[in-house]
Amino acid sequence: MVDEVEARPASRRRGRGGERARSGAPGQNPHLEVPFITRGIPPYDLADPEGLARIEATADRIMAEIGIEFREDPETVALFRKAGGTVTGLTAQSWNIRFEPGLIREMLRTAPARFTQHARNAARSVEIGGDAVVFAPSYGSPFVMDLDRGRRYGTIEDFANFIKLGQSSPWLHHSGGTICEPTDIAVNKRHLDMVLSHIRYSDRAFLGSITAPERAADSIEMCRILFGAEFVEKNCVIMGNFNTTSPLVMDGVSTRGIRIYAEAGQGSVHVPFLLGGAVSPLTMAGSVAHSLAESMVSCALTQLVRPGAPVVLGSFLSSMALRSGSPTFGTPEPALGSLVMGQLARRLNMPLRCAGNFSTSKLPDAQSMQQGVMSMMSAVQCGANFVLHSAGFLDGLLSMSYEKFMLDTDLCGALHGYLAGIAIDEDTLAFDALAEKGPGEHLFSTAHTMRHYKTAYYDSALDDNQPWETWDEQGGIDAATRANTRWKATLAAYEAPWLDPGIDAALQDFVERKKATMADAWY
Amino acid sequence: MVDEVEARPASRRRGRGGERARSGAPGQNPHLEVPFITRGIPPYDLADPEGLARIEATADRIMAEIGIEFREDPETVALFRKAGGTVTGLTAQSWNIRFEPGLIREMLRTAPARFTQHARNAARSVEIGGDAVVFAPSYGSPFVMDLDRGRRYGTIEDFANFIKLGQSSPWLHHSGGTICEPTDIAVNKRHLDMVLSHIRYSDRAFLGSITAPERAADSIEMCRILFGAEFVEKNCVIMGNFNTTSPLVMDGVSTRGIRIYAEAGQGSVHVPFLLGGAVSPLTMAGSVAHSLAESMVSCALTQLVRPGAPVVLGSFLSSMALRSGSPTFGTPEPALGSLVMGQLARRLNMPLRCAGNFSTSKLPDAQSMQQGVMSMMSAVQCGANFVLHSAGFLDGLLSMSYEKFMLDTDLCGALHGYLAGIAIDEDTLAFDALAEKGPGEHLFSTAHTMRHYKTAYYDSALDDNQPWETWDEQGGIDAATRANTRWKATLAAYEAPWLDPGIDAALQDFVERKKATMADAWY
Repeated sequence: MVDEVEARPASRRRGRGGERARSGAPGQNPHLEVPFITRGIPPYDLADPEGLARIEATADRIMAEIGIEFREDPETVALFRKAGGTVTGLTAQSWNIRFEPGLIREMLRTAPARFTQHARNAARSVEIGGDAVVFAPSYGSPFVMDLDRGRRYGTIEDFANFIKLGQSSPWLHHSGGTICEPTDIAVNKRHLDMVLSHIRYSDRAFLGSITAPERAADSIEMCRILFGAEFVEKNCVIMGNFNTTSPLVMDGVSTRGIRIYAEAGQGSVHVPFLLGGAVSPLTMAGSVAHSLAESMVSCALTQLVRPGAPVVLGSFLSSMALRSGSPTFGTPEPALGSLVMGQLARRLNMPLRCAGNFSTSKLPDAQSMQQGVMSMMSAVQCGANFVLHSAGFLDGLLSMSYEKFMLDTDLCGALHGYLAGIAIDEDTLAFDALAEKGPGEHLFSTAHTMRHYKTAYYDSALDDNQPWETWDEQGGIDAATRANTRWKATLAAYEAPWLDPGIDAALQDFVERKKATMADAWY
Repeated sequence: MVDEVEARPASRRRGRGGERARSGAPGQNPHLEVPFITRGIPPYDLADPEGLARIEATADRIMAEIGIEFREDPETVALFRKAGGTVTGLTAQSWNIRFEPGLIREMLRTAPARFTQHARNAARSVEIGGDAVVFAPSYGSPFVMDLDRGRRYGTIEDFANFIKLGQSSPWLHHSGGTICEPTDIAVNKRHLDMVLSHIRYSDRAFLGSITAPERAADSIEMCRILFGAEFVEKNCVIMGNFNTTSPLVMDGVSTRGIRIYAEAGQGSVHVPFLLGGAVSPLTMAGSVAHSLAESMVSCALTQLVRPGAPVVLGSFLSSMALRSGSPTFGTPEPALGSLVMGQLARRLNMPLRCAGNFSTSKLPDAQSMQQGVMSMMSAVQCGANFVLHSAGFLDGLLSMSYEKFMLDTDLCGALHGYLAGIAIDEDTLAFDALAEKGPGEHLFSTAHTMRHYKTAYYDSALDDNQPWETWDEQGGIDAATRANTRWKATLAAYEAPWLDPGIDAALQDFVERKKATMADAWY
């Protein structure tokens, strides 16, 4: 099946991977470019095994004694009943289901520890799980912002722009999903334009729609046109990112969507969005136990539908400004919670989506990166495999920022260097470098320096490391303004990756036919 | 001896610790306020034992086969010769000394694993070593900058201002040393004004002068006036922060100064400032081995002078912009190196100074916190005990920034929450909180939320977590501008901690008499 994809003309490597990699311009680190990262550093283990076992026991109690409420999807209820869940009818369209300790864990035994999500450019397929790390742009903001035009509702043009910016960066690995809401397109049709945009403007893997079961089905159908139905039947080419309705509810739109992805053998990510103090306990141990319980149950559904279906445990921990009740992001406590979540995912032997570059700032300022880096470091340190929200996140996830996107992708580049770890060998220990000239002599011209100077350090595309005088003479520009210049230049230089014209026409035809069957709906 | 200090009138707790802590204003987290942090999270162990052993073996080879060059201090050479070092004369005033593998490690056996540095306010004494973490302001910048006046040479007024801002923050634990150079005072006299300023404007522990042996002696003598000579003989009340002259040189000004602090039983920090590719190998394994060798030898000198003298292993790893040769800070590779350095210090069972809030940015912008947080996280994660450069660092250490100082101290507050770790117990696991109302109901009013809402999350003093609309109505202010407002308000509200007027007069008299003995010298 892989041959089928590889037989297609390879996407020409333009810009980023090709010419620019040899020009020596800032931000190029060809030795760090990979389709996805393979960790060279261990995860940061925060909690001890006893603490982890207590969290797991609490998750088990939540599932066994409180249970999950399912709404408007009797088929999902029937699947869990058949698998041993204790179902209690609440209303005609809602049921509580409780699970004996260990039951959900047993259902998850068939979930793969690691799988491949294929990209239309086979060289860009990603692996999800184990020691693989995949960075994807932020997801789900209704607004976009930039320094010139401020905050406004997102459009399909913004949506395409962010795909193009992502495609142009070597430091993301995945095109993401609803990067921003294209609010200028009807709600019941925008998924078609979103999936088409991902396919046209990026040659990377991407996420499909989850906002209605038929939209999930359309997303997968478009992949059948792109990859061929037989390939899709046997391989993961698309994923859906599903939120539970915390606390402890799963609505029918989600569970039907989850079943559609699983039936098709496609991937799904299962993420309780836990705002501590609002929809989850505000102590982190409790929030993590809660997150584990909800995500495990949601993930288990996929295995009842199709054992072995690709599935990703998810966690999105945030906090609250306790004087106002406003959500806060990039604070220290959720960073710790994410580290523990990573440990729990490894004990389950499942891939994890966790954390990202979170911030409540409304500008690409110092706050945005202070919060963003604290949160993003927890993602890379906890062992998360799929890091959605790696780039662009501002305004508590309400806005995608063009400038923050550029700052964040540059940080993602630095994290390629970080995750590479430290090589410790005869060459890197560099005794000869110090011995060559001896005490008091600089090492600029040693053989060791000459051998390593191109690859020793990550070379940022955006940081200004010049002396103050040079920087001042050049206008004293701040990082946000440099990012503003950079996203415009990147869009201007963007060229779409090659796409088979026959496939493009077939996709276009599918979208037009689908749209013709429905009147616009705006809810 | 401790009684003697405690018998003095306690510094009145004004502002920060007292009234403001009860007002509920932002940034107050009284449950996190401590004289120093005791880690609640484990260090992040990056390298495996085999890798660490190879780095140690390389450090041993550097000491044994290349050696350290000592200049203009025959007494230090005699001490090392007597202790077994192999001395080779190079010139009349320079010697190479080599150390058999294990010899320096043997000398360090008497170094304490942990010690107390006493503050004049006994409640603010800090412990250095083990699981203690102490944050101190940045050190050594010739320039200062703020948003109103830009970059300019530092003065004694700036110096005092930064002490006052530090004293006003609950998130620093130590007053630091040469926070900025007071360039309006003669070089041979400014140490007197700096030590006097630390004593007058802060009641925390601080660092003394190291720029000349007699200035080191003056610093200690002023502490004898403050604490009493007998107390100083038996307790650490001041430390000197010494740089080696990398690569592999120790000049006589440093070694004489080190001997003066050690003879007096006072503390010293020993820090190779390693700019990879310039004065150290640019591969991190080599840079760490090099750092370890230099710092170990420098530390060992203290134990030859006075076994048991308080001493701190130090490491300052930075990188280079490989296209220009400019130093870079806050990059990923030194962050990894610092994590390994922490492991090596624990294997030596010695306190560690490592990393800090580094940046090359010339503004308190997104770059400054992106670089700063990456570097600062490595400090808190590597297990560093004394984190100099915790606040104010911009411009590659050439400038202290008023705004960055405020942003950084707020980050230090967040790191108090981070280092506290996650409590995992019946209460924090919060099963009852989820059970109380069950699926689909928010937790705002649960008993668990009511019990924890004041302490669950760090409450930033500077971050804007409001909804976009509120933030926009209030003028759409960025973090740097908020920090600008905050440092001015903090200075305006500052009140000096109580100081015995007799001691103050005696110190003033000492400074005046010392100054009268010398003409101004500007080098």
